[in-house]
This record gives sequence, C-alpha cells and structure tokens, in this order.
Amino acid sequence: MTNEPTIKEVREAAERIKPFVHCTPVLTCSSLNRMCEAEIFFKCENFQKAGAFKIRGATNAVFTLTNEKALHGVATHSSGNHGAALALAARWRGIKPYVVMPENAPQVKRGAVAGYGAEIVFCKPTLAAREESLATVVDHTGAVFIHPYNDYRVISGQGTAALELCQEVPELDIVITPVGGGGLLSGTALAVSALSPKTQVIAAEPKRADDAYRSFHAGIIIPSDNPDTIADGLRTSLGDLTFPLIRKYVRDIVTVSEEGIVTAMRLIWERMKIIVEPSAAVTLGALLTKAPQFSGKRIGVILSGGNVDLAHLPWIEKTVEQ
Amino acid sequence: MTNEPTIKEVREAAERIKPFVHCTPVLTCSSLNRMCEAEIFFKCENFQKAGAFKIRGATNAVFTLTNEKALHGVATHSSGNHGAALALAARWRGIKPYVVMPENAPQVKRGAVAGYGAEIVFCKPTLAAREESLATVVDHTGAVFIHPYNDYRVISGQGTAALELCQEVPELDIVITPVGGGGLLSGTALAVSALSPKTQVIAAEPKRADDAYRSFHAGIIIPSDNPDTIADGLRTSLGDLTFPLIRKYVRDIVTVSEEGIVTAMRLIWERMKIIVEPSAAVTLGALLTKAPQFSGKRIGVILSGGNVDLAHLPWIEKTVEQ
Repeated sequence: MTNEPTIKEVREAAERIKPFVHCTPVLTCSSLNRMCEAEIFFKCENFQKAGAFKIRGATNAVFTLTNEKALHGVATHSSGNHGAALALAARWRGIKPYVVMPENAPQVKRGAVAGYGAEIVFCKPTLAAREESLATVVDHTGAVFIHPYNDYRVISGQGTAALELCQEVPELDIVITPVGGGGLLSGTALAVSALSPKTQVIAAEPKRADDAYRSFHAGIIIPSDNPDTIADGLRTSLGDLTFPLIRKYVRDIVTVSEEGIVTAMRLIWERMKIIVEPSAAVTLGALLTKAPQFSGKRIGVILSGGNVDLAHLPWIEKTVEQ
Repeated sequence: MTNEPTIKEVREAAERIKPFVHCTPVLTCSSLNRMCEAEIFFKCENFQKAGAFKIRGATNAVFTLTNEKALHGVATHSSGNHGAALALAARWRGIKPYVVMPENAPQVKRGAVAGYGAEIVFCKPTLAAREESLATVVDHTGAVFIHPYNDYRVISGQGTAALELCQEVPELDIVITPVGGGGLLSGTALAVSALSPKTQVIAAEPKRADDAYRSFHAGIIIPSDNPDTIADGLRTSLGDLTFPLIRKYVRDIVTVSEEGIVTAMRLIWERMKIIVEPSAAVTLGALLTKAPQFSGKRIGVILSGGNVDLAHLPWIEKTVEQ
C-alpha cells in the first residue's frame, strides 16, 4: 500500500483481522465521569489479544502479504508490544517472525515476544545498532520488514479500534488516543474523520516525550532523543507517514506530566478494576486536567494496552519480587 | 422473610435491585482455559457497584424494608465489602447507615465505608465487642440490622449474579463461587439448582479458613476461630441460614492453599488484565489444581470482588507507598 489510506482501507483491515482479534468491550465508570466532569467511554484494548491494540496493525500487515512475500517471514524492531503482536500474527499466518530487541529490554517483554515463538535478535540499545541489526536480519532471511507504526498497513489496522468504537458509541464529541510514533493516532483520526466528521480527535502525550506536540505546532517533525517517561510505549517519535495524517485530521495534542500519568493509571486500576499500562493512562491524565474543551463532553478514550510488569508498580517503592 | 428462599425470591430480588446494580459482563480467557483444561466463563462482580457482589444482597435487603421499618436506618458489622455495600444501598434509599468496624480495620476499607456516607462505630477486634457495639447502635438508633450473609433477603440478592450468569451462558456443567459466610454460595446454589438443574455448584475455600469444608462433611456447623488467610472476605464462618441451603444444593467444597490463591490472583491480573481480590481468586485456584471433575467442563466462575489495597500486593515484599 503506497497511497495514503482512507476509511476504505480501515474497513478492509477490519474484515481481514476479524477472525483473529477481539472486538473489545467499551466500559464506563461513573466515578471517573464525576472526577473529569465528562461522559467517558473507554475502549478496552488492554483486553485485546497480546494485551494491546498493536495486534490489529500487525495482523493487517501480515495478512496483506502475498504468499510469495510472506514465505520468508516478517521482521521488526521493537522493545514492546509490537514485537509480541507481530510474533502472534506471524504464528496465525504460519510464518516465521524475527524481532530485533535492545539487549537491555526487560525480561517480561523478552518473555512475551519469545512466548509467541519469535526469533529474537539482540542489539545494543541505540538507534544505529537497531537499524543495522534489522538490516542484517532482513538481508539474511528475506523476511519482510513491518515497521511498528510508519507503515500504511499498520496504520489502517490500528484504525479499526476507532471503527468499532464509533459503531458502538454514536455521537462522540471527542476521541482521545495516546501518541508515540503515531500509528494508533493517525489510524484513529482518519477513521473518525470519515465516520463521525463532527467528532474531534485529540492526542495525549507524556510531557517528557512531547515530540508530537512540538512537531504538530512547528509543522515539521522534531524527534525526541531518548526521552525518559514511564509511558514506555510512547518514547518513539512520529514517522513521515503518520505525521501528515496527524496534521490533516488531529485537532489538538495535550501533554501530561509523569505524576499525572501515574495518578491516572492508579485511578483506572482502583475505580474500574482493570489493568492498563502507563501509555494507556496518559489519556485519562489529559482528561483529569479538566481543561474547558472536555467539560460536559461525550468522550471516547482508547485504552491502548495492559502490559505491565506486576512486580514493579510505579506507586510502590523498593519492590522485591517474592 | 422468614421462609427459606426459592428462585421466586431471587427473581423478585433481581427486579428490585435492577435500577441500582450493574448486570456485570462475563469474560473468557483462552490462556486460562488452556491452563485449566476447561472452558471458563468469568462473571465479573469485581466490576459491580462498590466493587463486589455484596451490593446485590445489601440493596435487596434495604429495599425490602417498609418505609416505617427503614425510617431509622440500617446497621451492620463488617470490616469489608458488606459495610461499603450497605452504606451505598442506604444512600440510594435515602436512609442512614451505621457500620460497626474493628478499630484495626485497614485504612482503605474505612475510607470506602466512610466515602459512601456511613456512620462508623469502632470496636475492639473481637466477636463479643462487635456484637455488643452493634446491639448498642441498634438500641440507640432503632436502625434495622442487616447481617452480612445470614439473612434470607441478603441470600436472595446474592443469588441474582448466578441468575444473570445462567441467562447469559446456558448449559454450564459447573458453577464455582468462593465461600466465607455462605451468602453468595447459598444464593448461587439455590438459583442454579432451579434454573439449570444439571449444573453442579461447587465452592472454593481457603485451606486456612476451611470451616465450610469441615462443616459440609461433618453435617454440623464447625466455625473457624480467627482464621488467618489472605482472602479477607472469606474469614467468616457459615451461618444457621446459609448452612442448610448449602447442604441441600451444593455438590462439593474444594480447599485452596494460600500460595494457590496468590498464584491464581496474579494469573487473573496478568492474563485477563482485570483486578480481583484474593477472595475472588480462590475460585481459579481450585480450577488450577486440574482435579478430574473439572476436566473439559464448561465452568461458570463468580469473580466476587475487586477491592484490593493497590499499595500492598501479595507478590511484592516490603512495599512502601510513594
């Protein structure tokens, strides 16, 4: 797919991935509504296969490949959810997945990727080492590179969560997603703009990794350099395919402090009794600011994932696993 | 209500509480199915109002009262979910709740009960002190005592969770609930026996608080004396109203070690991305034993509640709240 995707590609993706992924539930929570002074509809991608929305884009990309293309497998670089998602999608297709991971990736993430049957290639934790390792893998194996977000097949797949949300909850005033590399945000924005033109799409981003905020306002991509935020899924910077879609369809980007992210995450755990990762909680963090633009509105929130190391929680110090 | 309840009373309770409580979702999890070698349907009462099934019985009891009876409020003793549930139900009815709590009750539980507007009366942490304090409260205020479980109105209310489960998931082979005082178990058992006579009802109980197991096999109530288990909702002993119903309708009681409870709780958090309390996880703990009676069966599990102190998790040592 070389042309910018439209709602047609999102609909095709939805059909393609339907046999594999969950249509996740939409939950509400009266106490969070009261706290945010808004009516919030949480699309629970933390309940998704492999624990995050990433399986949508990965599955769409993997099943878009011709048999000939798919023959030698798929490869990616990822220290997180995309690696696990691509491995699972490849297993469904019956092809080999290769995942390049930094050698300092947490054990829990290595375990998830290995558990889905991927061959892991470790590299030094730098951008250059990662790209070199990936190039070597692709070179040696003939695997197809599936980028975590800067890929139209992936973007179309990620848009399917918003497609389901708009079908289940009509007349939303706003849809909020987190933004890291922009795959979920751009897919969501293009889907929502087609399905519900009056609905604004707004992104939530960690203050400490605010490349999307700065890029959005500058009109050019300004990448973050190794940003340090607890929202480990949002440390990446926008890509040259996601950025134009975001400029075209996204209304605003709101930044959230680290403390705001942790507070929001704990509130979701406490009040909704569901487990979300910091990258998902940044959305509620934005709403908890009670900015005037959210007041009294019907707001769809994409809770992007729930992959957390339960032995290390941000509100507990000095954790020692038993 | 002085006669033993039947499915008629459970149906009436369901109508009575419908405007107030959630019809909670039923979730499934393919990896837990694989691990237990069974097909499990989790009825998520952790998503219920006030975080547990207890609101069903409390609401039924409170709304069964005549205006005259209700005039002076309701009272109970509880260090846990029933106190919060009764307080919330009383708020809905617009009457005053009094809750007797041991002075060593955890801050998080006091906060929940107070947060729903109850007047808390603290007592020494002994059975005698608790009963004396309660009698004094009832005497001074004229409030109606609503027992946490040994009350037919409460039992009928608790049975409504199983009523919903049987309506949503037909042809279950087994339904499992935790057992503490037996309110949920007896209500579930009488509902299931009427709605789906072929379905067996089985209870799961902590080994360290196995009064129901021992009473069930002895044929007389043998209370536990201050049992020490992480499943704080299951430290109570059977009552003289719950025990006969359990003898009549329950097929078996399975006990689970403390380690088994914690393992099950963590698995539910990790795999299902939902928060359950130890008392709820004892059910999966029973299934993880892979006893032959569960093999290949369609099993309904009532996940009874999700009220956990997130700063103190059983798999994390030396926790210090930030």
